[in-house]
Amino acid sequence: MKKLLAEFIGTLWLVLGGCGSAVLAAGFPELGIGFVGVAFAFGLTVLTMAYAIGHISGCHLNPAVTMGMWVGGRIDSKVVPGYIVSQVLGGLVGAGILYMIASGKPGFELGSFAANGFGEASPGGYSMMAALICEIVMTFFFLFVILGTTHKNAPAGFAGLAIGLALTLIHLISIPVTNTSVNPARSTSQAIFAGGIHLEQLWLFWIAPIIGAILAGIVYKFLAPDKD
Amino acid sequence: MKKLLAEFIGTLWLVLGGCGSAVLAAGFPELGIGFVGVAFAFGLTVLTMAYAIGHISGCHLNPAVTMGMWVGGRIDSKVVPGYIVSQVLGGLVGAGILYMIASGKPGFELGSFAANGFGEASPGGYSMMAALICEIVMTFFFLFVILGTTHKNAPAGFAGLAIGLALTLIHLISIPVTNTSVNPARSTSQAIFAGGIHLEQLWLFWIAPIIGAILAGIVYKFLAPDKD
Amino acid sequence: MKKLLAEFIGTLWLVLGGCGSAVLAAGFPELGIGFVGVAFAFGLTVLTMAYAIGHISGCHLNPAVTMGMWVGGRIDSKVVPGYIVSQVLGGLVGAGILYMIASGKPGFELGSFAANGFGEASPGGYSMMAALICEIVMTFFFLFVILGTTHKNAPAGFAGLAIGLALTLIHLISIPVTNTSVNPARSTSQAIFAGGIHLEQLWLFWIAPIIGAILAGIVYKFLAPDKD
Amino acid sequence: MKKLLAEFIGTLWLVLGGCGSAVLAAGFPELGIGFVGVAFAFGLTVLTMAYAIGHISGCHLNPAVTMGMWVGGRIDSKVVPGYIVSQVLGGLVGAGILYMIASGKPGFELGSFAANGFGEASPGGYSMMAALICEIVMTFFFLFVILGTTHKNAPAGFAGLAIGLALTLIHLISIPVTNTSVNPARSTSQAIFAGGIHLEQLWLFWIAPIIGAILAGIVYKFLAPDKD
Repeated sequence: MKKLLAEFIGTLWLVLGGCGSAVLAAGFPELGIGFVGVAFAFGLTVLTMAYAIGHISGCHLNPAVTMGMWVGGRIDSKVVPGYIVSQVLGGLVGAGILYMIASGKPGFELGSFAANGFGEASPGGYSMMAALICEIVMTFFFLFVILGTTHKNAPAGFAGLAIGLALTLIHLISIPVTNTSVNPARSTSQAIFAGGIHLEQLWLFWIAPIIGAILAGIVYKFLAPDKD
Repeated sequence: MKKLLAEFIGTLWLVLGGCGSAVLAAGFPELGIGFVGVAFAFGLTVLTMAYAIGHISGCHLNPAVTMGMWVGGRIDSKVVPGYIVSQVLGGLVGAGILYMIASGKPGFELGSFAANGFGEASPGGYSMMAALICEIVMTFFFLFVILGTTHKNAPAGFAGLAIGLALTLIHLISIPVTNTSVNPARSTSQAIFAGGIHLEQLWLFWIAPIIGAILAGIVYKFLAPDKD
Repeated sequence: MKKLLAEFIGTLWLVLGGCGSAVLAAGFPELGIGFVGVAFAFGLTVLTMAYAIGHISGCHLNPAVTMGMWVGGRIDSKVVPGYIVSQVLGGLVGAGILYMIASGKPGFELGSFAANGFGEASPGGYSMMAALICEIVMTFFFLFVILGTTHKNAPAGFAGLAIGLALTLIHLISIPVTNTSVNPARSTSQAIFAGGIHLEQLWLFWIAPIIGAILAGIVYKFLAPDKD
Repeated sequence: MKKLLAEFIGTLWLVLGGCGSAVLAAGFPELGIGFVGVAFAFGLTVLTMAYAIGHISGCHLNPAVTMGMWVGGRIDSKVVPGYIVSQVLGGLVGAGILYMIASGKPGFELGSFAANGFGEASPGGYSMMAALICEIVMTFFFLFVILGTTHKNAPAGFAGLAIGLALTLIHLISIPVTNTSVNPARSTSQAIFAGGIHLEQLWLFWIAPIIGAILAGIVYKFLAPDKD
């Protein structure tokens, strides 16, 4: 139960912080943080929570992470559903708080919020196929880094740093393509507010990250089984 | 006594470094550091001091942090007043040094200094309600991260890194809303120089951070009591 | 065999992440990540992989690193050829995946991809001699940091952080000169796609990094022999 | 002797990397790294060398650091002159290599190189008094962080991270004021190339950092004597 609360709070922070930086600060005139700032914000939500709640719930904050950790043999299958539900709920509440803050600006328009998308809903107009490849590959490497840095042979304590900055890196690469998801809970939280095309395209941001995560679980388990 | 001196020096650095980067460097023509640079500057004041004086005073540098640590059961109530007084004084001296440097530029105008505000005093014009929610929630997560990363089950040594970067993250999100406080000592130091509306609005930047900090103390203590 | 697979995957990530950030996100209108973002992306590919596969293969991801580690007396000569082949192949596959994503944007033109070059192929028009000096010196310091931070007297666990950020630093300095290589596998992967002048100039991005790496191996071994 | 060589190489890297990023990359059209990138570059030269040669020479790279460490009771007085000479020579060679690279660009003009200055030689036109206060105070805090993070009660291993990022922070604040020195070796290396007003003003960038460093040595020793 405490684990689920930790996942809820952590995912709330991921969405509020990551999407919040995009909605509130990315395009501020002249001094805005741009994609670099958003990339650091997403990564730092995970880095900060990894050290704060890693010792409580493992700090997944992401259904794809939970799936990859399960396939990689790191967690028991019975915790999977609870974690995913907590993450989705946390993301939604994070999006709600963000909406309350963002709408306090005169003339605020929701627009796409910080939703993910492809085709006409992609920041750079990238095709569905490009988006699919991108989200699968990015999530593959995200999980590969997570599984590798939390392996018992990796230096103790540094996983949170490497995993958080892996998410920063993924955003530095792929915001133009899909606005970067690699996290179905994050995508769902924004699509529900943005609606329309973002809701129609939401399937891709569940399927692609989970495929990438499962592949990483399989590959990393082959590369470094825990019994090594 | 040495603890109070450490808090004084540390908060001086937080204000001089964080607010200093905003006043001196954020808007420099073409090469200025923008909100991204200011966000890193604030975070790095805390990161650097955490490792320098964490072993002396705990490195709070912030009345809301001291309150949250007290509610979270980490410090004794008798140290609270001394810490808060030292922090406010340190912030004021930091602001004074910043003023001496900043006014050495021909044509310098104080303007709002790096003061916090809402409504017409918000960088992005955000309402009082948005500011109130934002400061409460941001300080809640700041303290949540502080309490979590300094918990005995968290990896030793990494707290300073995670806490400093949590403050960076908070600034990446919320500078447009309130110019980001989460720290009554920081807000007071600037409001006294900026005066006018910033002084009138200073109450919010004492009340909201302290509410957020107290809530975090209660929630985190439930989530991971020290006797776990 | 698992070591070679780890080097393959790691170098794939270096090219996909580093070059990918340059191709996809650097010049995005208004919000693009610029050279700062690309510098962090390259560094973070190495930082993240260092903690994920350092305990498997040592995480070289770069023929010059493998050469420098060999001259510095850290690895056996018999692993050198396999590592270099795996790195070059991983880079090529990384470039291929990047091409698949990048070409999913309407109106995409390959241009120089993220290839390295000098003279007219240098981002800032720097001469061949400047490029040669720059790549030799930058790779010298890259290997110097690698050898120093992985020395048995250095603080355990921090090498991945310092080495990744060393690559960030090198990019902050030298992107304008050669688009920054210090890595023949990275250069090869892009030159094969970009063709023309980039293929003609590829020799420099094999020779210069390897010279720099060998010099570092010699100097560091003198400075701190392992038997100290 | 090996310690002096380590200081020579390390200071060469500080000047080549920090000043190099400023000269080569800060103002690159559209994609340039700006003051944020330069601030990270300076900090990362120190961070990377701290882990690479900290275990050899202590990694001062700066006459003011050596003075502060001496006053703070951390090093023997007999090593001071050799360290300072090595640092100044390393800085000069670093500036020479930078000149060779930078002058390989058609139309290159030396200008101020990356020299420090005040009044008309200050990037933002700040007065001599502002520059004097700024350099004293910034170096005070730099040494305060160095002394604090290398104290035996501080978490082992994190000093290099905190010290490097302290230099980043100092640059985020003070590039507009003096182009940021806090390091007489760095200032000397550039003034000799830039000549004129920068050479005339060089005295300030020896005196102010050393005053700040000595003050920090005294204060920190009071705050946390080693016999604690």
